[in-house]
Amino acid sequence: MTRADGRQNDELRPITITRGWLDHAAGSVLVEFGRTRVLCAASATEGVPRWRKGSGLGWVTAEYAMLPASTNTRSDRESVKGRIGGRTHEISRLIGRSLRAVIDYKALGENTIVLDCDVLQADGGTRTAAITGAYVALADAVAHLKGRGALTGDPLLGSVAAVSVGIIDGEPRLDLPYEEDVRAETDMNVVMTGDGRYIEVQGTAEGAPFDRPLLDGLLGLAEKGCADLTAIQRTALAG
Amino acid sequence: MTRADGRQNDELRPITITRGWLDHAAGSVLVEFGRTRVLCAASATEGVPRWRKGSGLGWVTAEYAMLPASTNTRSDRESVKGRIGGRTHEISRLIGRSLRAVIDYKALGENTIVLDCDVLQADGGTRTAAITGAYVALADAVAHLKGRGALTGDPLLGSVAAVSVGIIDGEPRLDLPYEEDVRAETDMNVVMTGDGRYIEVQGTAEGAPFDRPLLDGLLGLAEKGCADLTAIQRTALAG
Amino acid sequence: MTRADGRQNDELRPITITRGWLDHAAGSVLVEFGRTRVLCAASATEGVPRWRKGSGLGWVTAEYAMLPASTNTRSDRESVKGRIGGRTHEISRLIGRSLRAVIDYKALGENTIVLDCDVLQADGGTRTAAITGAYVALADAVAHLKGRGALTGDPLLGSVAAVSVGIIDGEPRLDLPYEEDVRAETDMNVVMTGDGRYIEVQGTAEGAPFDRPLLDGLLGLAEKGCADLTAIQRTALAG
Amino acid sequence: MTRADGRQNDELRPITITRGWLDHAAGSVLVEFGRTRVLCAASATEGVPRWRKGSGLGWVTAEYAMLPASTNTRSDRESVKGRIGGRTHEISRLIGRSLRAVIDYKALGENTIVLDCDVLQADGGTRTAAITGAYVALADAVAHLKGRGALTGDPLLGSVAAVSVGIIDGEPRLDLPYEEDVRAETDMNVVMTGDGRYIEVQGTAEGAPFDRPLLDGLLGLAEKGCADLTAIQRTALAG
Amino acid sequence: MTRADGRQNDELRPITITRGWLDHAAGSVLVEFGRTRVLCAASATEGVPRWRKGSGLGWVTAEYAMLPASTNTRSDRESVKGRIGGRTHEISRLIGRSLRAVIDYKALGENTIVLDCDVLQADGGTRTAAITGAYVALADAVAHLKGRGALTGDPLLGSVAAVSVGIIDGEPRLDLPYEEDVRAETDMNVVMTGDGRYIEVQGTAEGAPFDRPLLDGLLGLAEKGCADLTAIQRTALAG
Amino acid sequence: MTRADGRQNDELRPITITRGWLDHAAGSVLVEFGRTRVLCAASATEGVPRWRKGSGLGWVTAEYAMLPASTNTRSDRESVKGRIGGRTHEISRLIGRSLRAVIDYKALGENTIVLDCDVLQADGGTRTAAITGAYVALADAVAHLKGRGALTGDPLLGSVAAVSVGIIDGEPRLDLPYEEDVRAETDMNVVMTGDGRYIEVQGTAEGAPFDRPLLDGLLGLAEKGCADLTAIQRTALAG
Repeated sequence: MTRADGRQNDELRPITITRGWLDHAAGSVLVEFGRTRVLCAASATEGVPRWRKGSGLGWVTAEYAMLPASTNTRSDRESVKGRIGGRTHEISRLIGRSLRAVIDYKALGENTIVLDCDVLQADGGTRTAAITGAYVALADAVAHLKGRGALTGDPLLGSVAAVSVGIIDGEPRLDLPYEEDVRAETDMNVVMTGDGRYIEVQGTAEGAPFDRPLLDGLLGLAEKGCADLTAIQRTALAG
Repeated sequence: MTRADGRQNDELRPITITRGWLDHAAGSVLVEFGRTRVLCAASATEGVPRWRKGSGLGWVTAEYAMLPASTNTRSDRESVKGRIGGRTHEISRLIGRSLRAVIDYKALGENTIVLDCDVLQADGGTRTAAITGAYVALADAVAHLKGRGALTGDPLLGSVAAVSVGIIDGEPRLDLPYEEDVRAETDMNVVMTGDGRYIEVQGTAEGAPFDRPLLDGLLGLAEKGCADLTAIQRTALAG
Repeated sequence: MTRADGRQNDELRPITITRGWLDHAAGSVLVEFGRTRVLCAASATEGVPRWRKGSGLGWVTAEYAMLPASTNTRSDRESVKGRIGGRTHEISRLIGRSLRAVIDYKALGENTIVLDCDVLQADGGTRTAAITGAYVALADAVAHLKGRGALTGDPLLGSVAAVSVGIIDGEPRLDLPYEEDVRAETDMNVVMTGDGRYIEVQGTAEGAPFDRPLLDGLLGLAEKGCADLTAIQRTALAG
Repeated sequence: MTRADGRQNDELRPITITRGWLDHAAGSVLVEFGRTRVLCAASATEGVPRWRKGSGLGWVTAEYAMLPASTNTRSDRESVKGRIGGRTHEISRLIGRSLRAVIDYKALGENTIVLDCDVLQADGGTRTAAITGAYVALADAVAHLKGRGALTGDPLLGSVAAVSVGIIDGEPRLDLPYEEDVRAETDMNVVMTGDGRYIEVQGTAEGAPFDRPLLDGLLGLAEKGCADLTAIQRTALAG
Repeated sequence: MTRADGRQNDELRPITITRGWLDHAAGSVLVEFGRTRVLCAASATEGVPRWRKGSGLGWVTAEYAMLPASTNTRSDRESVKGRIGGRTHEISRLIGRSLRAVIDYKALGENTIVLDCDVLQADGGTRTAAITGAYVALADAVAHLKGRGALTGDPLLGSVAAVSVGIIDGEPRLDLPYEEDVRAETDMNVVMTGDGRYIEVQGTAEGAPFDRPLLDGLLGLAEKGCADLTAIQRTALAG
Repeated sequence: MTRADGRQNDELRPITITRGWLDHAAGSVLVEFGRTRVLCAASATEGVPRWRKGSGLGWVTAEYAMLPASTNTRSDRESVKGRIGGRTHEISRLIGRSLRAVIDYKALGENTIVLDCDVLQADGGTRTAAITGAYVALADAVAHLKGRGALTGDPLLGSVAAVSVGIIDGEPRLDLPYEEDVRAETDMNVVMTGDGRYIEVQGTAEGAPFDRPLLDGLLGLAEKGCADLTAIQRTALAG
């Protein structure tokens, strides 16, 4: 008994990572998790925010947004509404935090890298695709800074990948598309380093609360998914 | 080797739950986790938001905010800044989601309960104190609606409590005050039902990424803390 | 023929002033005028706003706000609405102006004191309670600055208290609770110094315009009320 | 010892009221108090705000604003800043309240009249000029509605005029221009009906607090000024 | 076959330019194109925006707005709505660009001139009246700066005038009032220098797309109108 | 003497139109003018804005925006700034107006089509690329509505294409990339129908004002460019 798209429960959707999708940004990636398509651009600038000036330390931050037509039904622009919604805020913060976990601020020096993750098409897992793609764009931006002689050391302490897992009809499944996501009783996003340690765990009971064994099952599935994504990132960066 | 305030690693701060702190609200609680002090008010109104009208189902939502002088250094008002910050959005959403996990919308009928959680004094763990106190205010509001004959069934499917756990100097600790929170390598907030199931798990590596055994240790500590808080809630509601 | 709560027309509600209600603020007071309950916190910081830098003069300002559940029917948060309403602006400005009337800016030096007056429960007279309580918090903050050696002279030129008066059924009454306030034909707020001089008079015909004898009667009643409040403030500060 | 502009202390500046300054509005007045110049336009529309629908009662409201170049030094537009300042809010509310004091809502029926008071040039007393001019525009709008057969009774219960008074160098003076206003120790705005009753009294100690005899002196001066303005309004409306 | 107001197709409405309408601004003009009435004020300040500091070059900018009662039906204030609409933005930018076309930034030195164009009454052609009047206010402000010795050279490279043209019932017409504007199939605004060169051409098919001969006809008519306006400006400035 | 990219003065950059770039939208196009890359999505919904309800007429509107990393130097998000800039407003309005010029509202019935034009990469001419691509997305959306039986007639009265022209070093050139755009003395955007009529002409003197012969030269070049783009659109739609 397989899933609607024929995958096994512990199988990722087809993952594509296209580097250098933009001409200007220091690093840019079009990442696809099935039909979910996110453009991740890393812009590097000299200098850091005011509260960090003179510290000798760099900064990495992220902004996430969805294009209006990326969803099944068109959604209003946050610029038109004049305010950013809670979900957008939450995901932007999550992406920034996840990438900072593998950054050595000292080696980055007083440089700032902003990761813009714009969802061109949404089919579930946009935040995990964004983190996974943003890491690759970040790595390219770091290489770009190195190439320009702007860095002395290596600010990347490791790699980062993220995946969603959930319980559908009582079964733990990896990398949920939209149609599974809306039906999930429990939904969890996990961000991990390339060497298998946790950066972030966010699990939510959408339906009934879940018990510890179920939680343990989801964590195991996420570990597998992040390991697979790490391998794909490595291949992309080697390309 | 104990903590600055003399507690054991698996010990909560002194917890106080004062019901009926306001005269108007259907339920109101002043909850204290040590020096953290949150006023939780449950306002019940007939009717539901537009998108839910005619469904026969109720709605529960929450808004979290901090008074400017609640923190060590005065913080600016979000009303003056004209926009709500990401952290506030995130916590408001978390509180609402946590309480909705134990609500039977059908039994609530087309009534809305809004939980306002205003931090009067902040010393770490404001979101977990807010959830723990808001549940008690919610229970009082539900009793108030029942007393008015506005409900036929019982919309409360269980109780909810929340606690923070973290790793300080390599040791897992329960219910972090501000001075421990800023030093924590990993910080996790856990929301659980009174019968020991998970509603929400949010763990973040503030310093180095954490491995699975450490994660398991934190989860165990949180289970203990939530069980203790559940007992305190029961006593308060029996009072 | 007495009032609904049994008071004489020239009698204040029970007044409570609790100092030191918060741990962090330089001065903090929970002030109660009957069921009206306002938390007044004075935060002192070195430095002054940009337009005043280098003048050698200090600054005192205030921000007033109501918690959503403080009123009979829950009111929306101004932070959520994204803008501050006219009434809030008006009262914040009144409180600031009232306190500045007794401040010697030179003796304060280039320090700023912000008074946050947050209404926890509203039952009429919130602005006059806020001014009366804020003065006590301000006095504590000044003492705190003196204790830290941050001041050379004494910036307090006097004390400030405020009270509402109104005409109900043709009779002048002191310190109106909400149920009298909504029925008042004329409503007046008076701010006075401890030695009986006027800082601010704001009288409004809610119903029919009023004549001079009625105005004179209200002023006399307010003078009596402010004198009583001044005595209560002195006792509180001596405690 | 006279004033800089040669007036007696109880003398108004030259007052000009030009009716019908605009072609579209139901009533429009360019009012001048010396160099202060305010355009008051009354727009009448059928219907009332939502909260008043079906009541059979009308509504009158006002909006005050200053053009950027109306002041000595250009001030920023509130539309550009994206928010209305406290002073603007306060004055808009004052104008609306003052006019509503002489309106019989029932006779107005479910019609709304909005008074726009835009300061073209500011030289002190803009709010009192606005109220004085707005009353005339309102009277014209009411006549316009009557002419169209939109009213059965007469919604105007009386007339309204307003003036500022203040203490300069210890002397009470009437109708302060900007250069006196900035030097005033006490500043008071008084709104009165044509038959000499009070609608609003707002007195503020800008410098030292003031005593009762001084307050009484200011009230007497304001009564004289409002009576003079009432006569000018009558002449204008008879023209 | 003439127009509703009796004009020939290539005839302007009666044009009035009243200089010195305000006491404070460096230059101020009340410009009237028939019943359209715009107050143009030029405020000069030392210094330039941050991005231009130290360049030795000046800056000229403009802000356009409509008073709520200027239109047939009252329109809401943009300050109350909290955001500036697209049309307002567009016209403000057009006015600024048009005036900058005849400014020698170097001769202006590091001074800024802001042109505020506030529509007091709107009857079509408000943007072209604003540009035509703003040029005269600008010329007065430049003369004012010269008089103060703030300028060494002459920053005005020429004069600017603007006019609207359109196709009504298949006929090209000059300077459209509101009633013609709403019926126009094609609407064009043209900004020209006093010596007959183009600064800006903005033509829009409101109804059917237009062909090249029609476009050429409109351009010819606009050239005639701008020449007439230039003559009127010269007369006004000579007055 | 050719251009930096080797083109003739009357030659377009390589133009690519990729239809069906998104899975959800009724029509979607990735349009490329050289390195300028715009995603145009047409979302169709039943119903029209409130002011048009019951008219039997449809509506077409557009929103333009740039991704932060689309420009050479990263630009801030308008959603983060909380307001839409004047340029964005202006271009959104231009695109909407241009498309509405070829729409028969009656044949569209009470349906709304929103065109979202998001610039993924900017290298000059983003607004003209957006209009050219949006027309194709609109045509696909109309076909989609027809396929669903939602339309009776054909709402498309013609096709629309747009191109920029400018004067560089005294020479008129077609379709300016960014490096030419910033150097242009005069910049003009022209929107035309497929049968060679004008919808919109917007010409601006960036440097010196321009004379009529130069204007005529630019119009001729634009006519040639729009004809070329129309042919490319036809080929794309036939594909």
